[in-house]
Amino acid sequence: MSGLRGGVDLGGTKIQTVTQDEGDKVVGEARRPTPTTGGPQAVAEEIVETLLEAATAAVVESSSLVGVGVGSPGAVDSGSGVVEAARNLSEWDAPFPLGPTLEAALDTKVVLANDVQVGIEAEFALGAGREFSSLLGVFWGTGVGGGLILDGKPWLGRGAAGEIGHMVVRRGGARCSCGRLGCMEAYAGRAAMEARARKLLKEGERTELFKIMKERDRTRLQSGIWARALKRKDPLAVALIDRAIKALGAGIASAVNLLDVEAVVIGGGLGTRLGAPYVKRIEEAMGPHLFVRERPPAISVAALGDLGGAIGAALLVGRP
Amino acid sequence: MSGLRGGVDLGGTKIQTVTQDEGDKVVGEARRPTPTTGGPQAVAEEIVETLLEAATAAVVESSSLVGVGVGSPGAVDSGSGVVEAARNLSEWDAPFPLGPTLEAALDTKVVLANDVQVGIEAEFALGAGREFSSLLGVFWGTGVGGGLILDGKPWLGRGAAGEIGHMVVRRGGARCSCGRLGCMEAYAGRAAMEARARKLLKEGERTELFKIMKERDRTRLQSGIWARALKRKDPLAVALIDRAIKALGAGIASAVNLLDVEAVVIGGGLGTRLGAPYVKRIEEAMGPHLFVRERPPAISVAALGDLGGAIGAALLVGRP
Repeated sequence: MSGLRGGVDLGGTKIQTVTQDEGDKVVGEARRPTPTTGGPQAVAEEIVETLLEAATAAVVESSSLVGVGVGSPGAVDSGSGVVEAARNLSEWDAPFPLGPTLEAALDTKVVLANDVQVGIEAEFALGAGREFSSLLGVFWGTGVGGGLILDGKPWLGRGAAGEIGHMVVRRGGARCSCGRLGCMEAYAGRAAMEARARKLLKEGERTELFKIMKERDRTRLQSGIWARALKRKDPLAVALIDRAIKALGAGIASAVNLLDVEAVVIGGGLGTRLGAPYVKRIEEAMGPHLFVRERPPAISVAALGDLGGAIGAALLVGRP
Repeated sequence: MSGLRGGVDLGGTKIQTVTQDEGDKVVGEARRPTPTTGGPQAVAEEIVETLLEAATAAVVESSSLVGVGVGSPGAVDSGSGVVEAARNLSEWDAPFPLGPTLEAALDTKVVLANDVQVGIEAEFALGAGREFSSLLGVFWGTGVGGGLILDGKPWLGRGAAGEIGHMVVRRGGARCSCGRLGCMEAYAGRAAMEARARKLLKEGERTELFKIMKERDRTRLQSGIWARALKRKDPLAVALIDRAIKALGAGIASAVNLLDVEAVVIGGGLGTRLGAPYVKRIEEAMGPHLFVRERPPAISVAALGDLGGAIGAALLVGRP
C-alpha cells in the first residue's frame, strides 16, 4: 500500500482528481472535461482515466491507493454507492451504481458522497473553515449549493440538507431551473444568469459575454468568461452579477439569521474565480438583512479553490 | 423540598406561570397581564405574584420550589440572568438582572433562557416533537420566532439562532418592525398585520376587526380577535391571513430546504389559536417551495398550547 488516497470531484463540466498522502498533502492532480455523451458508463470510464492520470503523477497504480473518494452531484446513496438522477450530468436519467463500477475498474475501495457536502468538509478540515466549529459553505457556480458544519460535524438533515440555492428570496419571483419561483439560484446561479443574458441579448441588449465565449472556444458562459466581461465593465455582465449578489446577500443572511453560524465560506466556480472583492460585495449585500448586524459571521473565499471538492472527496476514505 | 419546579413564560401581553411535579405534570397554573408601566421592576414583581398564584394552586410556598425557570423575550444571558433590551416589553430599554431580582424575591434558584427556545424544547421533550430528533419550531404571534432542535439538542448558534421571522421572503419587500425589508415577520407577524389593517382601514377598506376588538374591550388585535373575524369571513382579515400564510409557507420551506429537519411544529398565539386547519394551509403553502417535495417534514400544531412556554421554562430547572 502506498498510503495514498484518491479524490474525485465529479462536476457538470469537469472531472477533477487528486492523490493525497497521509499528511493530507496533494501529490498528484488531473482534470478532464466531463463526457456529455455516453451517459453514466462514459462518465465512469473518464473518472478512471482522470484518476489514473493523478495517480501516475504521484507515481502509483490505482490498485495501490488505500481508497478513492468521489464527490458526486445529485442525490447520492453513500451506502450502496448509487447516484440517483443527477440533473447536472447529461444522460444520467436513472440511478447508476457509480461506486461499484469504479471499485471494479480501480480494484480499490470507493466511497461516495454529495459533492457540495464534500467541498464544505474539505474547507472545514483543511481550508478557510479550520478555525471554526460552525460553518455555512456556499458554492456559487452553475447552481448555488450549500453545505453545513454544525458543532464540528456535517449536518445532513435527512440527507438533503444544504439546499441554500432553493431558499426563497423573492416569493413569486423568477422561475428557477428546479421549476419553483423566486429561489436564490434563479438569480445567482450561473445557468440562470446565462439564460437571462441570452434572453436580453435577443431583446437587443448589448454585451460582450458571448463574443468572449466564442473567442475562448466555449459553448457556455463559464466563470472565467464572466470574470473577463466584468474586467471589461460589460454593462450586462455587471448588471447580472449585481443582481446575483443581491440575491446571495439576502439568501445567505437569511440562513445566518436562522443558524447564527460562526463563519461563511464562499466557493464554487464563480466564488473562487471572482474571489475576495466579490465575496466582500456579498458580505455588504448581507448586511442590511442580518438580524444581529453588529456581530456578522466571518466571511471568506474557499481556500482550497478548484481542488477543494477533490480534496474533500479524498478525505472520505478511511471514514468509518 | 416539594420536588416541584416553577415555570414562567414572560410575554409581551401576558405572564403565564406553572408549577410542575417531578413527573413533568402541571399541578398549578396562573396567568396575568404583563405590566405596561413601571419597567423591568414592575414586571419582576408581577412575575413573583403570578408564580405565587400558581404555587398556591399547587399548595406550596415559592421557597419550597426546587427552582424556577423563566423564558424571556429579547437577548438573554443565561449565565448572569440578565435580560438585555427586550423590544416586546415596554420600558425595558436597558439590561436588567431579572434572574438575581427574582432569586432574591422568591428565595430559590432561578434559570433564564430565551422564550422561543424554551417553547421549542418543551414541544421536543413533552409535546408535538417528542418522536423526532430534528425539529423546527415556528412561533406565530406578535412576531414570528423560531427555535431549532438538531440531533436531539437545542441549536443556538452563537446565541442568536432561530430568527426565522427575519428570513427574507421578498427582497426589497415590506418594511419589518426590525427596520429591515422583506422579512417573513413583516407579512406574518400579528403586529405587522395589525399595522396594515389599521392603514387599510384608514384608506377606506371595510373590516370588523376593530369592532370585535372594541366589543372585547381590547386595544390590540389579539389572536382571538383574528380568529373571530376569520369565522365571520371578514374580507380584510381573510386577505391578511392569506398573505401571512404565503409568507410563512415560503419562509418555512426555505428553512426546511436548508436544514431538512424531520418535523415542523407551529405554535405561538396565532398558531395555537387558529390551529390545525390553518397549519394545514401553511403546509400547503410550503409545498411549491420544498426542494424535496415528495418527502416533506411532518407538520403539526404545538401540542402544549398556551402553556408550552411556561412548561419549557420549568424544564430549565435542574439543567447542568
